[in-house]
Amino acid sequence: MSLVTKALVLREKNAIPAVEDFFLPPMRNNQVTVKIHAAALNHRDVWIQQGLYAKIQYPAIVGSDGCGYVSDVAEGVSESLIGQRVIIHPSLMWGDDIKAQSNNFQVLGMPTYGTFAHHCIVDADRVYAAPSYLSDAECAALPLAGLTAWRALMTQGKAQSHHKVLITGIGGGVALCAAQFALALGAEVWVTSGSQDKITMAQHLGAKGGILYSEPDFGKSLMKSMGGFDIIVDGTGGETFNHALEAIKPGGTIVIYGATAGTPSNVNIHRIFWKQVHIIGSTMGNDNDFAEMLAFVSQHRIKPIIAKTFLLEQGAEAFRYLQSGAQTGKVVLLMENM
Amino acid sequence: MSLVTKALVLREKNAIPAVEDFFLPPMRNNQVTVKIHAAALNHRDVWIQQGLYAKIQYPAIVGSDGCGYVSDVAEGVSESLIGQRVIIHPSLMWGDDIKAQSNNFQVLGMPTYGTFAHHCIVDADRVYAAPSYLSDAECAALPLAGLTAWRALMTQGKAQSHHKVLITGIGGGVALCAAQFALALGAEVWVTSGSQDKITMAQHLGAKGGILYSEPDFGKSLMKSMGGFDIIVDGTGGETFNHALEAIKPGGTIVIYGATAGTPSNVNIHRIFWKQVHIIGSTMGNDNDFAEMLAFVSQHRIKPIIAKTFLLEQGAEAFRYLQSGAQTGKVVLLMENM
Repeated sequence: MSLVTKALVLREKNAIPAVEDFFLPPMRNNQVTVKIHAAALNHRDVWIQQGLYAKIQYPAIVGSDGCGYVSDVAEGVSESLIGQRVIIHPSLMWGDDIKAQSNNFQVLGMPTYGTFAHHCIVDADRVYAAPSYLSDAECAALPLAGLTAWRALMTQGKAQSHHKVLITGIGGGVALCAAQFALALGAEVWVTSGSQDKITMAQHLGAKGGILYSEPDFGKSLMKSMGGFDIIVDGTGGETFNHALEAIKPGGTIVIYGATAGTPSNVNIHRIFWKQVHIIGSTMGNDNDFAEMLAFVSQHRIKPIIAKTFLLEQGAEAFRYLQSGAQTGKVVLLMENM
Repeated sequence: MSLVTKALVLREKNAIPAVEDFFLPPMRNNQVTVKIHAAALNHRDVWIQQGLYAKIQYPAIVGSDGCGYVSDVAEGVSESLIGQRVIIHPSLMWGDDIKAQSNNFQVLGMPTYGTFAHHCIVDADRVYAAPSYLSDAECAALPLAGLTAWRALMTQGKAQSHHKVLITGIGGGVALCAAQFALALGAEVWVTSGSQDKITMAQHLGAKGGILYSEPDFGKSLMKSMGGFDIIVDGTGGETFNHALEAIKPGGTIVIYGATAGTPSNVNIHRIFWKQVHIIGSTMGNDNDFAEMLAFVSQHRIKPIIAKTFLLEQGAEAFRYLQSGAQTGKVVLLMENM
């Protein structure tokens, strides 16, 4: 039986996302329907709205982050799940290789229908009990950013409490989660940003210091002032890559989870081999990463940082706000005024 | 007491290396004098001769690879070493960090006096029993290339018998050792080169296949034809770096031990994070690497490949030959016609 829900639907490239009634296909076996209370935006959603993503299929309901209550279950799923508050794990079909996702890997929200809707249908093994100390909005702010940060910092970077960790671009959701995780671990955390306000905010969280991108040779400055980093977690790419090669300790690890600033013009390869640097790419995370992240977050009572909340009906505005880059933390959509 | 020996001395930048009588400083405690029988060239020696190396001190006696007999020992060293045939470990003062060399790290031969001489004084812990099945020249061909290849392939790359391994620039000493080690391990080995002859030679050694650098998109071709590599060992850098990012399997490891072709113009960072690639820099190796490498070489009766031998007096000619890039394998200097 299909379900009519209210959803923020993308009908074509660059169309303004608008709420409409949408027929969701019926649940398949082993699936559940989640009545979404809160969802959160990721850059991926905006790239899909702008047509800047591979293999876009319309109509699309994007949204990889969601929190809500299980409202229905299909065959193969225990009815005891109904009514439970859950958080959705957005990695679909990772596969068996712990080192990398399979070719079938998808992120929730396009081509599957995502969380920017009043209901979202997912496989039952994608829902996890929502940490009770977090609000719906805070739960929605966690999954994709928290998962990406966890795999980058912990699974790939193998961060430890005695490490000095640099997190670049501290306004972003992944960067903030990585900083919160590293701080909870007891590591010494430094940040970079284009904005002094964001650096100050990170210092309030517990970061030891920060440096502006605009600082010439900021990699060298950091190396001089604090002796280099054991781990650098970077989602910006571009020239930051060479600064990271400067600021990393010999034998240290640079984890790259994105490249919002594009490609560096010249990579200093000599520094890679002479300093015996480890550079590790990281994308999202697998089921183990997600479970570990949730357990760590709950244990340390970590609250994801929310920059601003919008109603689903204000989705277009929320997309513009995320694009502006002004935010510190996650942009959250609430399904109803609560 | 100082020792007068015949040595290939570099007196200034770009001077033609010539054999002369040279006063070696006296042994310090815990040192030994090795009467060198054979030495081998590395690109480093040529770079120093050309003034293309950091902190060059003249007069220099270069040469990091040597095999000979212990002819004298200083206080603190057992006299039983005298007369033993030894191979010299060229990493000096690596330090305590297994992940990277210390700031004090040096390679034997400038600023210390190296192996391009009839005698070489080193700390007693730098000499290891020479594998008896190898000639003096073969022993001399092993240390720096074998050590670098071992750390790159095994310590950093963690190669295993079920892996598919790509070794780039197969004419070079490190690349050949890496190929021999990977083959002895039972891995499937592929190579790249600028020369079809070198690829054919590698196939005679046991490599499964090879591809010319001149092939357009050789990374993509390799990915298509054989499904990608678990490990790529690269000492060339330049555009090969991007080809390697193409040809590596998701979750695979690219080990970089040099960049003879310089810096890549544009690194595809998106591929690094989406494929969750590990890129690891590697330089020389520590004492553990050297001991493991020697044991593996002896166990598998591996013989380093020698391209050509010269007499010490023909040193200038040997330098030119190495620079030509025509060789396959190591260029060896013999102290006397034997």
